[in-house]
Amino acid sequence: MNEVNIAIVGATGAVGAELIRILEERRFPAGEVRLLASPRSAGKTLSAFGHDVTVQALSDDAFGGVDIAFFSAGGSVSERFAPAAAEAGAVVIDNSSAFRLQEGVPLVVPEVNPEVIADHSGIIANPNCSTTIMLVALHPLHKAAGIKRIVVSTYQAVSGAGAAAMDELIEQTRDFVADRPLQANLLPVASGDVHYPMLFNVIPQVDGFDEGDYTKEEWKMVRETHKVWGDDTIGISATTVRVPVLRSHAESINVECERPLDADTARRLLAEAPGITVADDPAAQQYPMPVGATGLDDVFIGRIRDDDTVPHGLNMWVVGDQIRKGAALNAVQIAELLSESR
Amino acid sequence: MNEVNIAIVGATGAVGAELIRILEERRFPAGEVRLLASPRSAGKTLSAFGHDVTVQALSDDAFGGVDIAFFSAGGSVSERFAPAAAEAGAVVIDNSSAFRLQEGVPLVVPEVNPEVIADHSGIIANPNCSTTIMLVALHPLHKAAGIKRIVVSTYQAVSGAGAAAMDELIEQTRDFVADRPLQANLLPVASGDVHYPMLFNVIPQVDGFDEGDYTKEEWKMVRETHKVWGDDTIGISATTVRVPVLRSHAESINVECERPLDADTARRLLAEAPGITVADDPAAQQYPMPVGATGLDDVFIGRIRDDDTVPHGLNMWVVGDQIRKGAALNAVQIAELLSESR
Repeated sequence: MNEVNIAIVGATGAVGAELIRILEERRFPAGEVRLLASPRSAGKTLSAFGHDVTVQALSDDAFGGVDIAFFSAGGSVSERFAPAAAEAGAVVIDNSSAFRLQEGVPLVVPEVNPEVIADHSGIIANPNCSTTIMLVALHPLHKAAGIKRIVVSTYQAVSGAGAAAMDELIEQTRDFVADRPLQANLLPVASGDVHYPMLFNVIPQVDGFDEGDYTKEEWKMVRETHKVWGDDTIGISATTVRVPVLRSHAESINVECERPLDADTARRLLAEAPGITVADDPAAQQYPMPVGATGLDDVFIGRIRDDDTVPHGLNMWVVGDQIRKGAALNAVQIAELLSESR
Repeated sequence: MNEVNIAIVGATGAVGAELIRILEERRFPAGEVRLLASPRSAGKTLSAFGHDVTVQALSDDAFGGVDIAFFSAGGSVSERFAPAAAEAGAVVIDNSSAFRLQEGVPLVVPEVNPEVIADHSGIIANPNCSTTIMLVALHPLHKAAGIKRIVVSTYQAVSGAGAAAMDELIEQTRDFVADRPLQANLLPVASGDVHYPMLFNVIPQVDGFDEGDYTKEEWKMVRETHKVWGDDTIGISATTVRVPVLRSHAESINVECERPLDADTARRLLAEAPGITVADDPAAQQYPMPVGATGLDDVFIGRIRDDDTVPHGLNMWVVGDQIRKGAALNAVQIAELLSESR
């Protein structure tokens, strides 16, 4: 395989750091590795592929000679710089929400719709972390029995709000133990007017509010699922909630299928599917939890139960590392498919 | 009103302490106040109604002259001693699951079915905390539009597992800050073989496993709701989950109604209903959270949204103090209705 020159925009963030680690672990055939970040972070040195790499300031002309540019520095950075990267000849794999629903931009979960990667015009989008984790879990069931409605409630880690939110939760823990008032400056939405403590709390808001009093995060789970599955008739009702967990998301998912599907069959289909580990042994009190999933690649599924309140209903409990499969790993898997097809 | 002699079984536990506090706050017309607990706690002194009261050891003949006996010391204590208390002439208000589904035992949420209190034969049961909080929230909607299906996912505080579980979570916080391994000996089920840390984790198991791989807690939400509403045709699909919160439960609830009901109407009906505070202002980032509900009597409801994926569907987010409305307050409200009817 030819070497691939890569750029990582947002290299100093939580997802950026994980991107470097995953590319190394999976022996991605990287040629030049260019690390890009805000001018504030330029000049820092990070280790990548055994070398010290100096972080450069992001600019329109930072992408010459780059084959694949990973973007994970937020929507406004992607909007501003991804077109320039694509213009310079790179294929952008964007982790932000900026281009996900744009026509002509493939929205890809490699376990679900790898075939659409080829349709790109310079930008490929990674779905939202909650959506990716849900889709990996549900796709084998959708293929087998046709999912017609999903009711999902999430238990999302603070990592989804970035490394600073993880630090803030840890700092609140220290404040609690030292009997100091908890400082809250980031959640639920850093740019918002109101902030709530996360320690010993649950916040039923992830991202800002939008149409119908649903949050943007909830709409992402609806619209991105429709796009990835290519079917906007599927009913998806989402409630997204932040919990005091550092970095793996959990989701309580209820589905109703078109065709018969029982818990035993679902368990077998899921166990055979790529990217999934079934951990479902109630007698041994085994089920997925954030503490067990963190740092791992698979989406973990347990608590699989028949729901007899509707025909062909199922309940399940899904956990995935928000930074790995929810973000960095999915982007690297897309890059691998791109580089294999070169 | 005549004075009422009361006994509190489990007086030294988290719910017992709250029972005493709420009876005092609401100026319950208590005559003699007898505090009962295990022989281990006998001899301790607790303050109740301005007096120091010595805790006595629970025994069959501890109930002479008692009008109302509150039980909150677990199912096996209730099974063993509640019949003796009733036999001695007391009306038992039992917070355990021992008698809830037994025929002839009224299962009461005062905001929902106060009329069944009169049917007791010495024992009245308090529903499970998750069920009580859900029923207070849903009853006004059920009356208006006939709820036919509920999908609920809970975010339950550790207080539901008792004061020791609250202490353990706090201790895990100290261990984390001091960089010591976290000690876990109580959750998910104290008597179980396997224990998991709660700090920075989410545990999708509350109580032991039962039929269909649902937990007992999940079945309680189904069967107790059927009994309180007197209708076992309502579909209820529950996933109960423990989160690192000290003492208020939250629930993400999706309902499907028989008749039209939109979010605006639901918001108005809920705002007029007893025992409920609507906190639902997305523009101001206002919604209920455990930190805001702890120590308060009402059930708090927010994130009320139309769910267009089914006819007459709604999503909502409900928070209630597990120890107050979820246990002690509900029991005191039953006692008030009993004492008013004497």
